[in-house]
Parts: sequence; C-alpha cells; structure tokens
Amino acid sequence: MNRITVEKKVLNENQILADELRERYRQHDVLCVNLVSSPGSGKTALLERTLERMDKSSRVAVLTGDLQTENDAKRLAKFGFPVKQITTGGTCHLDAKMIGRHLEDWPLEDLDLLIVENVGNLVCPSSYDLGEDSKIVLLSTTEGEDKPLKYPTIFNSADVAVITKADLAAAVEFDEAAAVRNIQAVRPGMEILKLSAKTGEGMAEYLEFLESRRLQTRAGAAANG
Amino acid sequence: MNRITVEKKVLNENQILADELRERYRQHDVLCVNLVSSPGSGKTALLERTLERMDKSSRVAVLTGDLQTENDAKRLAKFGFPVKQITTGGTCHLDAKMIGRHLEDWPLEDLDLLIVENVGNLVCPSSYDLGEDSKIVLLSTTEGEDKPLKYPTIFNSADVAVITKADLAAAVEFDEAAAVRNIQAVRPGMEILKLSAKTGEGMAEYLEFLESRRLQTRAGAAANG
Repeated sequence: MNRITVEKKVLNENQILADELRERYRQHDVLCVNLVSSPGSGKTALLERTLERMDKSSRVAVLTGDLQTENDAKRLAKFGFPVKQITTGGTCHLDAKMIGRHLEDWPLEDLDLLIVENVGNLVCPSSYDLGEDSKIVLLSTTEGEDKPLKYPTIFNSADVAVITKADLAAAVEFDEAAAVRNIQAVRPGMEILKLSAKTGEGMAEYLEFLESRRLQTRAGAAANG
Repeated sequence: MNRITVEKKVLNENQILADELRERYRQHDVLCVNLVSSPGSGKTALLERTLERMDKSSRVAVLTGDLQTENDAKRLAKFGFPVKQITTGGTCHLDAKMIGRHLEDWPLEDLDLLIVENVGNLVCPSSYDLGEDSKIVLLSTTEGEDKPLKYPTIFNSADVAVITKADLAAAVEFDEAAAVRNIQAVRPGMEILKLSAKTGEGMAEYLEFLESRRLQTRAGAAANG
C-alpha cells in the first residue's frame, strides 16, 4: 500500500469509530463539542470560564488533548466536573479511538455535555471526526485576520467560529471586519461569536450558544423517539 | 505495509532529499534557516523586518509555506529580494521535495542566506528535515509560557528559540522566566532571543545571530574546502 491508501484506511477506520460515538451520544442525549484552534488561542482559558459559570449540578465533562503534560486537566479539574487528559505522545490530533478509550469508565447517561479540547493545531484535527455534534474553531485576535484563508479546511469543517482575546483587539490592531469577511469567504453563513475569557465579554452569549445547541440535540433525540 | 511502515518510508525518503539539500547548501556556502511556529506567532512579520533591515546587496532569498494563499509571498516581495510561495494544499508541513522543486531555477551560487518559513504548526514540521543549518522556533508572548512543555519535539529539534511579540508581554502578563525555564527544561542550553517585530526591540540581536550563523557556515565551508 502506498501513503495515500494507508491514509485513507486510517481515516475510514476513524470514521467508523466516530459514527459509533455519534450514535452513542445521540442515544444518551449528550451534546459533544470539539474545540479546535492554533496552540495558544485560548481553548483552555475558554473552558475555565465555561466551567466556572456552569451550575454545579450541570452534567458536563471534559476531555482535553495535548502531546505532553497533564497541565490542562489540572487547570480544569478545580471546577469540580469530570476532566481527563488525553496525551497523544507525538500525534498531532485527537482521533475517535482515543475518545472512545477515555470514555470507557464514564457512563454517558450521566452527561448532558461533553467538551473535547483538541490538540492545538489548525491543520490535522480537521481530518479526524470525533463524532461531535459541533466543531468550534477558535481564532484569537493576536493570530491575525488572514488565518481562515490560510487554513481553510479547518474553518470550513467547523460549525461556529469564536474570536477570542477580544480584550487584546485594540493592542494588536485586529481588523474584525476583515476577519469576519475571511471566515465568511471560507464558510459562507458561519455563525461567529466574539469573547474575552479574561474580561468575560461575550461569555454569556457563548454559554447561550452551547445551551441552544444542547436543546437542539435533545429536541432531535425526542423527535427521533 | 501498515501505517508506521509507510510513515518511516516517507520520512526516510525525505531524509535522503534533505541530506542532498544540505550538501548543496554546504557546497555553495549558503546558510539555510527554517522558521517554525504556531500559526500567527509572527514568522512573516519577523521576515518583513529582517528583509527591511538587510542591505539591498544582500544575497538573501525566501521560501514561504502555507496551505493556501500567496499572501505571505506578496507581503515579502516588496523588499526586492527573491521570494517564492510554496502552497502545500492540505499538507501540514513543508518537506525537502517541495524545497528542492522550488529551488530549481534559483542558482544557489547567487545566495548567502535562504530563509524558509514553514507552515504554521507546532507539531508536524518537527518530523521533516529540510536540510537547514538551523531551525528557529518562534514562541509569541500571547501563546502562553507552557507551549514548550506541551510541544516538546519541535522545541527539542530547534537550535534557537525566539520569543516574539515582546511589545504585548505586559498586556498578556507573559511570565518570561517561566517561558525560559520551560524552554530550557525541554532543550537545556538552547539560545533564546526576544524581540518585537512591531517596535523593533531585539531585531538588531536577531540579525547579529543570523550573521554569526552565516559566518560559521562560511568558516565551516572554508575548513572543509
């Protein structure tokens, strides 16, 4: 087999496992979201502010991916919700098999929301379906407005774009209109949110977005019986 | 063949081509540096400030990599030095074959310095030798001090770390001592520079670093020649 054939085989195997995960989430009315972005765009900071604002009775859990370290799981564990670190070694993305393995001792019937934080990488995670309902791509104001055009696949495969580090927009002369235009050029009609995990700006709207997606999941499950 | 076997074969083929490139650079006294970082760490901004400050008679050329767009080549072409864009399509890194193909009509005897700007990705470029003399890894103050620990392979395979966006350090409460400690934990003794392409802070030291590497290359060639 050549390289392309092997890549196809790996992606096909991943797709089968991702579809199984999607079906399990559906059966248990769990909304799964997959956060993707460059390293340092603020995925973990957004998760901290998300968990902090959630009611303690919320049935939410987090799987957080990195090549190395348990740092993110440690940062997130203090909010009292179930958190597991997935360390990939050298692998540049999470895959459905890693998710499945880390869910083995988490009964999905105890969850309403599963948030997966992918490895920081604007390229490779776009190829690996994790069975999620929504892929959320973060773009920080400090990265530059051109990233959607340069990394179109990940923006095109996401359901919503979240502009992070809004508090730094002025300092870095972030051109929001250009960023929005570039996102829309790659994925016309994509919903775009803007927030700052530091100041809290936009966090309420982000949590509303998550809640509306969760209600959609539940309504879909009810409609399907 | 399984996936690992194919990956090994691809990497072996890349290594052969990278070694050929390295030998060609050596024969022509060309210093080749490979800039790697996350998307948006400021590789292109650093290149702009580098080319801007170079004497117009400098024998420097740039190959700049991205998945899509010719934006970076356009940004860099205005300084009057030879620049080519390498668009990789979906590929998450540059490889030696892409470099060789884009050098075909550039006589190396006309160059002293070849700067390669890799695809923005803190993972995959670490596996692909491009025949460079030095790999320079950028870490922007806005990305967080923990990135060397989370992405150790790329920091470990680099020769020098450049902390960028120094002008934003205060705004993001960048802990420089922690960043240095984390870099040194992954690669003890690694040289670390700090600069701001916006204010020009540290640019003189960076250009001195490039010049000293170039003189080393020349001295090495003279000793071997």
